[in-house]
Amino acid sequence: MSETVKTKGYAAKDASGKLSPWEFERRPVGDDDILIDIKFASICHSDIHQEKGHWGEQIYPQVPGHEIVGVVAAVGKNVTKFKVGDRAGVGCMVDSCLECDSCKAGEEHFCDHGKTVFTYGMPSETEPSGITQGGYSDKLVVRDHFAVHIPDNISFEEAAPLLCAGITTYSPLMRAQFKVGDKVGVAGIGGLGHLAVKIAVSKGAKVYAFTTSEDKVEDIKSWGVEEVIVVDDEFKNMQAYNKTLDYMISTIPYQFNVAAYVMCLKPGGTFTFVGMPEKSEITLNNLMLAFARVNFNSSLIGGIPETQEVVNYCADNGIRPTIEIINAEEINEAWEKVENKDARYRYVIDAATF
Amino acid sequence: MSETVKTKGYAAKDASGKLSPWEFERRPVGDDDILIDIKFASICHSDIHQEKGHWGEQIYPQVPGHEIVGVVAAVGKNVTKFKVGDRAGVGCMVDSCLECDSCKAGEEHFCDHGKTVFTYGMPSETEPSGITQGGYSDKLVVRDHFAVHIPDNISFEEAAPLLCAGITTYSPLMRAQFKVGDKVGVAGIGGLGHLAVKIAVSKGAKVYAFTTSEDKVEDIKSWGVEEVIVVDDEFKNMQAYNKTLDYMISTIPYQFNVAAYVMCLKPGGTFTFVGMPEKSEITLNNLMLAFARVNFNSSLIGGIPETQEVVNYCADNGIRPTIEIINAEEINEAWEKVENKDARYRYVIDAATF
Ligand SMILES: [Zn+2]
Ligand SMILES: [Zn+2]
Ligand SMILES: [Zn+2]
Ligand SMILES: [Zn+2]
Repeated sequence: MSETVKTKGYAAKDASGKLSPWEFERRPVGDDDILIDIKFASICHSDIHQEKGHWGEQIYPQVPGHEIVGVVAAVGKNVTKFKVGDRAGVGCMVDSCLECDSCKAGEEHFCDHGKTVFTYGMPSETEPSGITQGGYSDKLVVRDHFAVHIPDNISFEEAAPLLCAGITTYSPLMRAQFKVGDKVGVAGIGGLGHLAVKIAVSKGAKVYAFTTSEDKVEDIKSWGVEEVIVVDDEFKNMQAYNKTLDYMISTIPYQFNVAAYVMCLKPGGTFTFVGMPEKSEITLNNLMLAFARVNFNSSLIGGIPETQEVVNYCADNGIRPTIEIINAEEINEAWEKVENKDARYRYVIDAATF
Repeated sequence: MSETVKTKGYAAKDASGKLSPWEFERRPVGDDDILIDIKFASICHSDIHQEKGHWGEQIYPQVPGHEIVGVVAAVGKNVTKFKVGDRAGVGCMVDSCLECDSCKAGEEHFCDHGKTVFTYGMPSETEPSGITQGGYSDKLVVRDHFAVHIPDNISFEEAAPLLCAGITTYSPLMRAQFKVGDKVGVAGIGGLGHLAVKIAVSKGAKVYAFTTSEDKVEDIKSWGVEEVIVVDDEFKNMQAYNKTLDYMISTIPYQFNVAAYVMCLKPGGTFTFVGMPEKSEITLNNLMLAFARVNFNSSLIGGIPETQEVVNYCADNGIRPTIEIINAEEINEAWEKVENKDARYRYVIDAATF
């Protein structure tokens, strides 16, 4: 197992946001690693932001993708968590120190030693390309701790989006500790938002879904929400929801009028921002926040134990992302649709087509 | 009591931020009103922001001032809360509906009917000048509910700053429900911040004071803080406080590097912003907020019952603002000092000099 792993994938070659086929090598399968034969990888809006350099300059070629599922094809000699043939999934991170308090508490994304390694684009001494390379590809070598088990009662393609969109919405929703019957708002009904809706409904919340896409209304209603609000340009029809919600999560992945949404919360409510806009900046009106008496926070993925938890929860409780399977050559078109809000609701790439 | 009340004060005539003497009339003392012979009014940074139009266009002439103390000189026929000769104080607001749930709950600044009237600069049908006029003057007519009693065990001049700086810091500090021994950060040690320090120390917190003014260190230490951190331009010496504080309040009245301060909080901690920057805008880095796992909120003054509470608490527990008494003709110079961070720590205007 000392040989590098020949891999085929789709990579960004520059900040244009166009992907093209690329053959590259992954590090040899180490003692603590597993090799995954990827079956599906789904498209997250973050992939687009990062490859286009919206969050900072990137090293290219870079293979995006952090919603990855497949079958274990090899294991290192120390690995006990997986055996060859197991179904496995990988999300937004692939390594951390595993020794600090945060890592030991299952919050590897908050590694106290700053050793969290995200799935693609991070400098890596062990990867032959010099950076971590993501899941738009046919093979992945990953430290066993950072893969989760995919139960048999969910398909590969439906499990993939849970690895980022699922955990990113599940984690803050659980932290919000809303009670059955509480009114939970979800702003932005795309890949993340539609899972937030389904999870919150499943957990007993009365869900209020805010979308700017009129043609998503019927879909959203079918997921069991209390109401769908089609947000107009002037936010007029949101005024009826002033101070009505107990909690709100926004998955809107760009700068927006935060005030219009915050105003829908009851005083003392909490607003969680999980969308990551360009430059990662949000501008808040201080007076607005003071008058609304709302707590504002941001959230980012979740740890490995909680990622396993959301996968199991969704598998066991019939929560399935609404997906469309595409071939590798359709990725660029799919990215455009994601940016134009035309995705319904998660594109999943068939890795057999790389 | 049907006659308007001739008043002498200092007004801004335009957005230059220069004040000059102005004689004007206040509304007659109505059935629910009291007339206050003003003894002292203190200078809040908000006065400067508002008169210079930093928060929006203003109507001039406008008399600022919302930290006002004096003696009741007349009462309307319905007034039972005060009698002539009582010591009284007025803060940031002078009216609201008093019928809605928020008003009834003592949160008149959050009047559900939007009827909160702030002490100066707000359109008013009853005031002869067309807007409410503040406390840099010798007389004030105000609805009795919006005045608080000033106990005998505190001087007029030391009570004045409690009406805005006191309540604005006391209210979020109480809401934070920190425990004795908790580590509380105070960022910005000016008029508001120095009271936040004194109140938090009095309530049993270990206080960490963050200032950019080296020459405030000895003063701040004398107020019983745990540590004073002189913040350098690159925020280097703040790194030692990474994830150490339970709660933090910022009184910094301009745009600043929020991240450097937020990082000092323990995960799960709360950061309250009470300074009001130009345009009332704060820009946050979303990733930073996600990694810090901090709740962010803003706070604005407090209701009338809580304003009475902070006045009584400070009077009874030896909490006194550090003040400098000035004459009316020194106001413009004092404003410059406030803007240049040279105030130590609150200028109080002797109303006998208007
Ligand atoms: Zn993602
Ligand atoms: Zn760690
Ligand atoms: Zn003030
Ligand atoms: Zn009211």
